[in-house]
Amino acid sequence: MKDEGKKIEQVRVDLGERSYDIWIGSDILTKCGRLIGDLHFSRIAIISNPTVYGLYGEPLTNTLRNLGNTVDVVIVPDGEEYKDLLWTYYIHGELLKRRLDRSSALIALGGGVIGDITGFVASTYMRGISFIQIPTTLLAQVDSSVGGKTGVNHPLGKNMIGTFYQPRLVWTDVNTLKTLPRREFLAGIAEVVKYGVIWDEEFIRFLEEKRERILGLDDSAVSSIIKRSCEIKAEVVSKDEREAGPRAILNYGHTIGHAIETATGYTAYLHGEAVAIGMLREARLSCLLGLLDSGDGERIGSLIESYGLPTKMPSGIDIDKIISSMELDKKAVRGELKFALPEKMGSVKVREVSDRAMIVESLRAKE
Amino acid sequence: MKDEGKKIEQVRVDLGERSYDIWIGSDILTKCGRLIGDLHFSRIAIISNPTVYGLYGEPLTNTLRNLGNTVDVVIVPDGEEYKDLLWTYYIHGELLKRRLDRSSALIALGGGVIGDITGFVASTYMRGISFIQIPTTLLAQVDSSVGGKTGVNHPLGKNMIGTFYQPRLVWTDVNTLKTLPRREFLAGIAEVVKYGVIWDEEFIRFLEEKRERILGLDDSAVSSIIKRSCEIKAEVVSKDEREAGPRAILNYGHTIGHAIETATGYTAYLHGEAVAIGMLREARLSCLLGLLDSGDGERIGSLIESYGLPTKMPSGIDIDKIISSMELDKKAVRGELKFALPEKMGSVKVREVSDRAMIVESLRAKE
Repeated sequence: MKDEGKKIEQVRVDLGERSYDIWIGSDILTKCGRLIGDLHFSRIAIISNPTVYGLYGEPLTNTLRNLGNTVDVVIVPDGEEYKDLLWTYYIHGELLKRRLDRSSALIALGGGVIGDITGFVASTYMRGISFIQIPTTLLAQVDSSVGGKTGVNHPLGKNMIGTFYQPRLVWTDVNTLKTLPRREFLAGIAEVVKYGVIWDEEFIRFLEEKRERILGLDDSAVSSIIKRSCEIKAEVVSKDEREAGPRAILNYGHTIGHAIETATGYTAYLHGEAVAIGMLREARLSCLLGLLDSGDGERIGSLIESYGLPTKMPSGIDIDKIISSMELDKKAVRGELKFALPEKMGSVKVREVSDRAMIVESLRAKE
Repeated sequence: MKDEGKKIEQVRVDLGERSYDIWIGSDILTKCGRLIGDLHFSRIAIISNPTVYGLYGEPLTNTLRNLGNTVDVVIVPDGEEYKDLLWTYYIHGELLKRRLDRSSALIALGGGVIGDITGFVASTYMRGISFIQIPTTLLAQVDSSVGGKTGVNHPLGKNMIGTFYQPRLVWTDVNTLKTLPRREFLAGIAEVVKYGVIWDEEFIRFLEEKRERILGLDDSAVSSIIKRSCEIKAEVVSKDEREAGPRAILNYGHTIGHAIETATGYTAYLHGEAVAIGMLREARLSCLLGLLDSGDGERIGSLIESYGLPTKMPSGIDIDKIISSMELDKKAVRGELKFALPEKMGSVKVREVSDRAMIVESLRAKE
């Protein structure tokens, strides 16, 4: 699809009657209005935070209004600590006051926090209304835009309250990455690396070879990594929408990553940074178990480091706290710890690891 | 299915991979353990209120434990006013503390309030775990046990926060009706009458002829009306799980009924009582529109009255408030008012009624 010289890429997420398309391009934010208009919603509410709305909200709102839509805006504070049931309740109330009905839609304009809470609100408002994602962080573009996971945090665990609920469409403008803090961009790269390790060695090579273009935010290189990431995730998710089995390979780096986030109170690391540490530690666990050869383990570590991501465990962290947090993870069943462990580049298997001492060793290793 | 001389009836709710069975019998509460045990849950939490748990909780808990299940109990206060996001949050927290995981299940032991909030918690805890309904009121047995509607109230509207989520099985013991307050039993009859009016004239005749046996809580008569009600609802729901179209016929009596509940703050009437008034008023609206002949309208009114249900509008009620509440109902689209209007006994059609004056007249009529 050509559009004023700009290429717009399309990825289909195949989930039967819940299938949808992801559109990826640069300088395309104001062009999504026509696609949304075709869906004929009675009202549209844009859910965003002050930073992102300040940057991209007005042109989007104006485009939608000019095409004849009734548009409301609901702003919630910026940050993972506001992704909770209280802010869900606030949004529900705003939607009721503005009389959104079952033919209305929500647009999530922002990163993962906005996407997760908006998806959760959409899935529970009047037992479910349409929602559209316009992800503005790399992490949201390559991760939460595919898979239909919605959720909010509970003091006893991250994303413990949520649903599986698919968007109607996803609109990704890579231009939004130019205003994204550098640290957040790099955190998003962690998930991109994950897709390579679990699925596609060639993609790992691309990430190694095009590092400079990617870090320089070259439109075409960045569009390519987003597209390939979405394709891989879409392929995995379409086989296992409700996370009963195969989808668990997407948790590579996340069993340990989530536990690090919980143990550090979600403030020390961005999600992708915790996942980067988790990927390195889980690769090490795989080496310790004799499943991955040390050369591949080092290649994963080098790639993560070359993108400026952390690899060391937080200093002074309580390893017992990490273990008990993993046991409470919603993916753990009967307290057994499961890991997605790389066996070679582009291939990963989900295994239960009962040897706690070996897990502790992979967490303790200094570098 | 025979069981120690007691007949157990079975109704299949056909929803593809989300299909489930409703079992109906008398003196069967302690027999559901084996069926639940076959599903191999890692843990089971019974959600109930103090009254119902006091009557039926211990034998159920003991049966499940004796069969080797790990059973937790979470008690929430009794009443529609506690069916909100705060109590949802409390239950989520209790489940996390007791480490229920994705292979665990919730059992809703109680009436509609317990069923609605338990279903909502089950659908949102770790993005969805199994749940089983043991409904102990007639209303819950004939209404909320079929259809997968879950939800909690918001100060701006009833059941505004919720999901569509199916139970794994429903276990109905008509014996529980013997401890149910008389007023609540009669309120349940309102929904039973509804099924006759919208679907089955023969069932209306049964309700007219067997009135004394039904009011006398005769096991076989009561089992019959529960079974027939579930069959009718299952047939309608299986054609329209997410309430996109045909399912709207189940809203007969509810457009006005819900509005009466909202306008009176949910305290003056039980749900079924408000629906009884709503059915009579909507039958009248149908007569005014020339869709229903007055003989059938009177027959509906007489049947409702013969079961001791209210038929008059609450005195001093503000009709404008009723109208505006209907406009905000989650079934209203773009503020248009839709009603399921009877056309003859056993048949109903969903229509938009734009003539506000005629609606007001049907609400104003004295008797």
